[in-house]
Amino acid sequence: MKLIVQKFGGTSVATPEGREKAIQRVLEAKAKGFAPVVVVSAMGRNGAPYATDTLINLVREIDRDVQARELDLLTACGEIISSVVMAQSIKAKGCPAIALTGGQAGIRTDANFGNAQILEINPNPITRLAKAGQIVVVAGFQGVTEDGGITTLGRGGSDTTATALGVALKAEEVEIYTDVDGVMTVDPRVVPEAQILDRITYREICEMAYQGAKVIHPRAVEIAMTEQVPIRIKNTFSDAEGTLIAQGAAERVITGLAHLTNLVQVGVALNNGKSSQANEVEVFKLLADNGISIDLISVLPKGIYFTVKEEAAEKATGILSEAGFEYTLQKDCGKLSVIGAGMTNVPGVMANLMGTLHRAGVEILQTSDSEITISFLVPMEQLNKAVQLLHNKFALGQS
Amino acid sequence: MKLIVQKFGGTSVATPEGREKAIQRVLEAKAKGFAPVVVVSAMGRNGAPYATDTLINLVREIDRDVQARELDLLTACGEIISSVVMAQSIKAKGCPAIALTGGQAGIRTDANFGNAQILEINPNPITRLAKAGQIVVVAGFQGVTEDGGITTLGRGGSDTTATALGVALKAEEVEIYTDVDGVMTVDPRVVPEAQILDRITYREICEMAYQGAKVIHPRAVEIAMTEQVPIRIKNTFSDAEGTLIAQGAAERVITGLAHLTNLVQVGVALNNGKSSQANEVEVFKLLADNGISIDLISVLPKGIYFTVKEEAAEKATGILSEAGFEYTLQKDCGKLSVIGAGMTNVPGVMANLMGTLHRAGVEILQTSDSEITISFLVPMEQLNKAVQLLHNKFALGQS
Repeated sequence: MKLIVQKFGGTSVATPEGREKAIQRVLEAKAKGFAPVVVVSAMGRNGAPYATDTLINLVREIDRDVQARELDLLTACGEIISSVVMAQSIKAKGCPAIALTGGQAGIRTDANFGNAQILEINPNPITRLAKAGQIVVVAGFQGVTEDGGITTLGRGGSDTTATALGVALKAEEVEIYTDVDGVMTVDPRVVPEAQILDRITYREICEMAYQGAKVIHPRAVEIAMTEQVPIRIKNTFSDAEGTLIAQGAAERVITGLAHLTNLVQVGVALNNGKSSQANEVEVFKLLADNGISIDLISVLPKGIYFTVKEEAAEKATGILSEAGFEYTLQKDCGKLSVIGAGMTNVPGVMANLMGTLHRAGVEILQTSDSEITISFLVPMEQLNKAVQLLHNKFALGQS
Repeated sequence: MKLIVQKFGGTSVATPEGREKAIQRVLEAKAKGFAPVVVVSAMGRNGAPYATDTLINLVREIDRDVQARELDLLTACGEIISSVVMAQSIKAKGCPAIALTGGQAGIRTDANFGNAQILEINPNPITRLAKAGQIVVVAGFQGVTEDGGITTLGRGGSDTTATALGVALKAEEVEIYTDVDGVMTVDPRVVPEAQILDRITYREICEMAYQGAKVIHPRAVEIAMTEQVPIRIKNTFSDAEGTLIAQGAAERVITGLAHLTNLVQVGVALNNGKSSQANEVEVFKLLADNGISIDLISVLPKGIYFTVKEEAAEKATGILSEAGFEYTLQKDCGKLSVIGAGMTNVPGVMANLMGTLHRAGVEILQTSDSEITISFLVPMEQLNKAVQLLHNKFALGQS
């Protein structure tokens, strides 16, 4: 029995039309000889009655402070309802189908409610049903603790359900269905010549997601990577081949670009008497204790630079002021990241990128680089131009 | 620790106002030194997004034929959502509360999906939480099978959850909250002088419910009766004392009246050659095989009389015709039942009742009697008059 895991997101399962298309994908896989295991998100969003956010608002309206355990119990219902509706829709096409909660599907997690980690998956419940000819529809985004607590895997967690099942079931492939034709070289709203990538490596897609290209949750990719289960990003609503995420030799120096907007660069001066190291530790601890995420961190002898999201800037600077730190602010920044597993072995990539940006008059406020990513912080009004420039430079628009 | 189980129905938990009142009852019980265990139904009905019927329609619209297992998984979400909302509402009043699914509350059932029977209840999960000062809110109407299947206890099953928990937890009392002040001697829409009963026995309330007075599900009462756990029917929205359901010496000959409308009396002639016994068996088997419920059955040498609900009459007579039986029909009948545990030891009750009805010109089409109930089938247009007559006769309108 060749199993395939197919995950459908909220927009695919929200309407009868979407489910119709999704089921077409399921039946196509079955016709090709696969036993499909379907994973679904909750139906729709933005106020749809069974959407995750709507369920959360139901209790948040009563009191903002909701325990994670209770939120999980509540929101898990969204995917359960979706799984029963999907199973019934498949059955209406004459194909046996059965809905399972995460727990019934054998997904056991730790008790870290709201952001649970999968501890193990018992593959037997699904394989037994699949062998009996049932299309199993699993409620995504959830699991169960050893003592029966219902947990969720955190936002975007249905992708994780899909890849974790892919690994546990030794599936041939995990298909993640969305409403785009695949992973693109760059955001097509910024660069019209953006191309669909045929394939991308696990690490590249993780970087793309982390740097702002929202296609699949990085945690989901990491799980698939452990056992090298191939993932395919496909469009529920088109017949495009999609993008294959798999291991493999890098064929290109640069695979794609990603960007993030509305960042604020904070510079903290380290000159108030203490050692700079004590200062650094204090700054990072203060921000972490207050739940402020920072990015693009540069620690220099005279100061620390980092970025925060615009909405967190006021809180961050308030905390720093209170603790007696002086700071500078650079508002309205954007971060452009160049991702490519192939750049590791190619000398001069950074110089090439910097030169291209400089010659075009793009102001570079900060940079960072890791093995497969180089990022530039630039003024927001120059971000799109910079993205377009580098996309052209590496000929990513040529299929 | 003195536990009390408090069950709130759909109308009590559907709105913030209803929940406000319900929580007032919970906090009153707590102030009296009880540890309240709350059982909730799904929120609202008739199209409310999380009501049982709405959830059922979600899949019935896709295909009428839904497996009971899938329906249970789906509808169980209605009570789970309700339990989280209720727990959160209690917590917002500053009182620790936690929501549990039926399974988490230790309720194990058989695998008879859609109409599951409780096999056992592990009291530990609830008592542990109650001891820790938590108000436990249990999703009613549901349980879990040994291998993790989510079951429902059938319609009206939240009452059953409440009384079964009452027994398992050795609760002082089970309070069933509705939107009426208690069990009435008769339907107040028919007899304005109807009185709230202070108390009623388990068997009387079962008969009342069975004979048409919808206050509490008979199955729920039977469970409480096994361990003599007192039940109190109360109004969420008033301070009335309510009606206590408990064992006890009958203080009255007649406790109350109940009635059913829109019945059709069917008479089947047994003269087609076979033995009357073979005929009888065939008639009952035919009807049962076709899922037709019959009531008020009188088997006589020359024929069988029984009643069916108006909506089932056509199907019933069609089946009889096809099998070659001749039948007579008496349409537009109503059934009046007189219930009282005290009538057993009092001679002449039947004569008294018959005489009262005869003298007033009420036509009696059929009667039946059991230990604590006497029923009369009468023409619908005489039903209300008959109910009023007997209510007066036994002075039930005097408190």
